[in-house]
Amino acid sequence: MRRAFSSRWLISSVSLTVGAGIGVALAAASDARGSPPIPGGLLHRVPIIPVPSVHAASELAPYPRGPSTPSRSAAAAKYGLPSLPHVTSREGYVMSYDPRNRTAAWVIERLNAETVRGASERGACAFREDDSVHAYHRARNADYRGSGFDRGHLAAAANHKWSQKAMDDTFYLSNVAPQNPHLNQNAWNNLEKHCRALTKHYENVFVCSGPLYLPRGANAQFFIPRSVFLRQEPDGKMYVKYQVIGKSHVAVPTHFFKVVILETQRGGVELRPYVMPNAPVDDKIPLERFLVPIESIERASGLLFVPNILHNTSSLQAITAHA
Amino acid sequence: MRRAFSSRWLISSVSLTVGAGIGVALAAASDARGSPPIPGGLLHRVPIIPVPSVHAASELAPYPRGPSTPSRSAAAAKYGLPSLPHVTSREGYVMSYDPRNRTAAWVIERLNAETVRGASERGACAFREDDSVHAYHRARNADYRGSGFDRGHLAAAANHKWSQKAMDDTFYLSNVAPQNPHLNQNAWNNLEKHCRALTKHYENVFVCSGPLYLPRGANAQFFIPRSVFLRQEPDGKMYVKYQVIGKSHVAVPTHFFKVVILETQRGGVELRPYVMPNAPVDDKIPLERFLVPIESIERASGLLFVPNILHNTSSLQAITAHA
Repeated sequence: MRRAFSSRWLISSVSLTVGAGIGVALAAASDARGSPPIPGGLLHRVPIIPVPSVHAASELAPYPRGPSTPSRSAAAAKYGLPSLPHVTSREGYVMSYDPRNRTAAWVIERLNAETVRGASERGACAFREDDSVHAYHRARNADYRGSGFDRGHLAAAANHKWSQKAMDDTFYLSNVAPQNPHLNQNAWNNLEKHCRALTKHYENVFVCSGPLYLPRGANAQFFIPRSVFLRQEPDGKMYVKYQVIGKSHVAVPTHFFKVVILETQRGGVELRPYVMPNAPVDDKIPLERFLVPIESIERASGLLFVPNILHNTSSLQAITAHA
Repeated sequence: MRRAFSSRWLISSVSLTVGAGIGVALAAASDARGSPPIPGGLLHRVPIIPVPSVHAASELAPYPRGPSTPSRSAAAAKYGLPSLPHVTSREGYVMSYDPRNRTAAWVIERLNAETVRGASERGACAFREDDSVHAYHRARNADYRGSGFDRGHLAAAANHKWSQKAMDDTFYLSNVAPQNPHLNQNAWNNLEKHCRALTKHYENVFVCSGPLYLPRGANAQFFIPRSVFLRQEPDGKMYVKYQVIGKSHVAVPTHFFKVVILETQRGGVELRPYVMPNAPVDDKIPLERFLVPIESIERASGLLFVPNILHNTSSLQAITAHA
């Protein structure tokens, strides 16, 4: 059931590019240009972000540069670039927003024995629009009304009993995705509880949650646990298909992932990557059945976890039901 | 056919947040941390990027900050953030990559009378993998083979006759998306030619091209030209559905956009936003029929163009067939 990552991963940690802090970067650039600081200074609190993330991967050759012909690309950007990452840092989580799908791409939290205890009350919280997102790309409560989907938390409310504000922040609709009510209230809820229970045995429990939009007809073993198979499309081709709800066209993920990063007391790191379909899931199926290789989530989501983790530890143990 | 943007846009330009240069930012952060410069220094050449783009929009209230409780979010990012923008600057374009869909989110070029002339030859170019993209998220030539789709350029090869290297760079598969062959070779090709022809009448022609993944059943007038209507799904719900091809699961866009930004000799800016479906399009239909309100592209793509443009001009004229 358990195996250490192969030596390929261990070797790759040597060639990691040292990350530049984007918080520091924004502050420095802001000073240099004499412009006012970014409102709220949200990103100042995030100290280390490897940029760009693709450079942190062992498979990468450096981008081949030609002779020093003057580039015109600076000129091409005269009227700005139409997108930048919507990374937001809040009381209890860091999130990257996907403005096309009107929900987060991922949300990371740190849980430990302290954060999961406290007097904060869920009854005092209310789901609300995230006005840090442009009105064109924002989910609203009205989008969910009558849709048949729950407003499913990515960072779970009960993970943040330590602070009423932190719990409040999990109710921004940017931290929410349309989720099958049965899944939300049963198997997914059990997975959230399991993450909290892990704080009894581990110093820190990092949880990264997000949506997936998987093709039907994909190799079921590759992308999702053996317990959940997808049908092939009649024409033999592969399609990604997902519903969008409400006037804002909020995307309904086909699956959800949780990547759980556990710090052991001896300084090692354990990795437990889960995927569940956005559908009713029998909560008698053991949670271990939903463990998948981290590579499956990395390929399907467009995200990378392992290179960043290896930046912080040389002892990584990945746990999957497939190993 | 033509109308100036309403005063809402003009007012909003006053409240724009001054952008921080990400190139400057990366360099500064790199120095500050004593870490080696970003390989290739690709981003150093992009001088001005408003960050974060959502703050440039007039609809935004500032993010409401609570009292200064200490945040745990910095701690949450201990093992890194799983994504950052894949913005790449090359000889003739700036691009943002979408690692989930294995193609660019957008590519911006600047065309003028100089760039569209020259001795560069297309025959000397070959489509190739972009090894600046992680192997998990990269498109390959094999993905296209037998798929029935052309490797459709986003930044067009013939826009960069001025430099063989610039033309070469357009053949990275990151600058390519699966495109219906009829569209690629007829109506889309005509739109590309039209952009080049505009260099005879305008100082500079900025072209931003990218894929769209639009829901079927969406209000046709809202999202796409009146000439192309989509069917409602039988269950009355709205779905985004697109094919993925090859082992790498390269997404096949449902539509493509081109946002053309024209600099007039009197210092004004004209905006011409086009959308075409990724399907055979009769090339006798005048190109003007594919003009859409810029807001349609901004909503559907998750991108923002107008706030950045207003950062550089107070005279913006948007041209759509609907106005």
